[in-house]
Amino acid sequence: MQIMPTSPLALPLPELGVVRGVRLATGAAGIRYTGRTDLVLMEFALGTTMAGVFTRNQCPGAPVEWCRSVLSGGVARALVVNAGNANVFTGRAGYETCQRTAEVAAELIGCKPEQVCLASTGVIGEILPVERLTRALPSLYNTLNTTGWAEAARGIMTTDTFPKAAVKTTQIGEEKVIIQGIAKGSGMIAPDMATMLSFIVTDAALPAPILQTLLSEGVKTTFNCITVDSDTSTSDTVLLFATGMASHASIDVTTDALTDPILADFRKALNAVLQELALMVVRDGEGITKLMHITVTGAVSEDSARRVGLAIGNSPLVKTAIAGEDANWGRIVMAVGKSGEPAHRDTLSLSIGGVCIAEYGTVCEGYDETQVVAHMRGQEVDIAVDLGQGNGSAKIWSCDLTHGYIDINGSYRS
Amino acid sequence: MQIMPTSPLALPLPELGVVRGVRLATGAAGIRYTGRTDLVLMEFALGTTMAGVFTRNQCPGAPVEWCRSVLSGGVARALVVNAGNANVFTGRAGYETCQRTAEVAAELIGCKPEQVCLASTGVIGEILPVERLTRALPSLYNTLNTTGWAEAARGIMTTDTFPKAAVKTTQIGEEKVIIQGIAKGSGMIAPDMATMLSFIVTDAALPAPILQTLLSEGVKTTFNCITVDSDTSTSDTVLLFATGMASHASIDVTTDALTDPILADFRKALNAVLQELALMVVRDGEGITKLMHITVTGAVSEDSARRVGLAIGNSPLVKTAIAGEDANWGRIVMAVGKSGEPAHRDTLSLSIGGVCIAEYGTVCEGYDETQVVAHMRGQEVDIAVDLGQGNGSAKIWSCDLTHGYIDINGSYRS
Repeated sequence: MQIMPTSPLALPLPELGVVRGVRLATGAAGIRYTGRTDLVLMEFALGTTMAGVFTRNQCPGAPVEWCRSVLSGGVARALVVNAGNANVFTGRAGYETCQRTAEVAAELIGCKPEQVCLASTGVIGEILPVERLTRALPSLYNTLNTTGWAEAARGIMTTDTFPKAAVKTTQIGEEKVIIQGIAKGSGMIAPDMATMLSFIVTDAALPAPILQTLLSEGVKTTFNCITVDSDTSTSDTVLLFATGMASHASIDVTTDALTDPILADFRKALNAVLQELALMVVRDGEGITKLMHITVTGAVSEDSARRVGLAIGNSPLVKTAIAGEDANWGRIVMAVGKSGEPAHRDTLSLSIGGVCIAEYGTVCEGYDETQVVAHMRGQEVDIAVDLGQGNGSAKIWSCDLTHGYIDINGSYRS
Repeated sequence: MQIMPTSPLALPLPELGVVRGVRLATGAAGIRYTGRTDLVLMEFALGTTMAGVFTRNQCPGAPVEWCRSVLSGGVARALVVNAGNANVFTGRAGYETCQRTAEVAAELIGCKPEQVCLASTGVIGEILPVERLTRALPSLYNTLNTTGWAEAARGIMTTDTFPKAAVKTTQIGEEKVIIQGIAKGSGMIAPDMATMLSFIVTDAALPAPILQTLLSEGVKTTFNCITVDSDTSTSDTVLLFATGMASHASIDVTTDALTDPILADFRKALNAVLQELALMVVRDGEGITKLMHITVTGAVSEDSARRVGLAIGNSPLVKTAIAGEDANWGRIVMAVGKSGEPAHRDTLSLSIGGVCIAEYGTVCEGYDETQVVAHMRGQEVDIAVDLGQGNGSAKIWSCDLTHGYIDINGSYRS
């Protein structure tokens, strides 16, 4: 695998904290890569609750199905993640790999296999050499510690060019709690779910249904509003664990997760972590040179706005125009039109970088491209479309389409 | 505009014939390009009937709306096509350009403006300098002839690298009739309609409703089954004219166009022309190095098969893998899954170049990639997917995604 230069839109790792109730370790199992780590183990305290959202791809990987079944059990004691092989479309062997991995991890941790979450990322359709993975687990178990988050963020990377993590401290009642997560993802990134892998842990004590509501609602406007290449992975997984080590007021399972004031700060902080992680995935979009912020307003509904935004963010012609710093806004109009959502040429207005370009079905009088071109030379390009149809709005993040994407994906497996 | 090398999958122009009842001419109006032709005029005999299919993009160009209105009138006496400016998102000025062009052409031909079909292709959102167009029309009128088809095919090109035309002779009853057409298209090519521009003329005498049925049915499996980049143009137009100069048995308007034996040969020949033209558009897909033939079988319906085929044909990751001659078939599985259509990993089978790669949810026993890689080195790549769900099938044609596409579209307007 070739070494790719770090994304020009990379962010440095933030200073990460300790989340009470979780220990982790990272190691090299040699599953596909040599000379780098590729295996992460997390151990959670007794009583840890979990929530998860997964790919909507109809051909999900074996670990996705495994996690769905762990989630239905409601108790998580461990997480094993490997990079280099996605364990997807591997038939019976894929399931057996999951079972064997969970068994080995469960024995080390002292829990049941069905309390071990699994995630895999990498090439599709190749049998995962499970014995390499299980052979490496004991030494990971022996090195479990509370500070190994940065190493874990690196250990789950595939075509990622920088490690991704985010952290917020907030409070529930008077008690300070922390929310900290890592993510990986760079290509095969499209919504229709929390894209690629992300694992977030908090020391809050929250019942699983509350956690699930908060996560499901949070990904809607974060992980589900990013796109790199419109391709929905078979492995997408976002897991949120709550170790319950914080001693805040007890949150009852009947609490309304989305409206109760006791969770307002927590919810805001969680959404901020989700958004930071999601945006880091786009910032590492394969071949990225520019980040697109797409704001759609005036749609008939939020869903409609989201679909229009994604049509723009996924259009190869819009993406190549952004890459070429070409203010070819006609392509944005085309993308709005191709979305099939309620829109009308004569009520549509469009701006780039805050400069009004078109309204009422034609170009703005006296429109001068110079300012727009100057804006497009920057690393972040703002596109705003108002459909003039209603009150629905959405924000979508995408990246440009460049030679780098072709370089990476014309030879991924080599 | 840079000169692009001719597509490696280009085909030579076939030997074109004369279609009784149509005269045509091509000239240089200097609308955008210099040193090349960009304007085509066709004149049709009195009594010519027409059929048309248009883009489903919600922001269609002014000429598309104009043509729809001509079509509703049912009589066509002329066609004016320009390249270099699509006259899309040009507001009131766009409509006035159509009207002025039709008036000038109508006066030359001796018909009504509402009998003049119009089509424009090129950049979106710029006002078309209509006076250049109308100034050029009289000299085109003066050079109308019956043999200028190859020049017309060249005159409507934009980013096309080779001119596209197809011809078939067939019969209705005992009478020999000809069907001849031209097309242009290379980027912003996605189904949801007969992609880009194509104009087909026959000397058959067919009522407009019959012609419309034949065309609508024919594009379903031809122009609507090709994709280059998933972007649906705002200008897509396919028009079919019947000059009525052939003296075959009269075809009544109540004839069943799709089942009556009298039209069986004609229908077959028309579909062959549509398919040849549609495939030429893919063969000139921007940056193409390989043509993909995607066959989907075992879907729950034809529509479902078509959507699965398009998900494969539009996937940037599948397209880049094809470009890189990488037998990374997991990406095809991903694309099937992301289509959202009924499919199940464990009933899915997949082959490339006739080599069985995967079935029953896992890779075929003893699968050896060598043969597949050898097939992928060729210019045409066959992908076959069976979903094992039903009897629906479809054939889709697409092309790979290469550096050439980025080169062309990162600087189209320059």
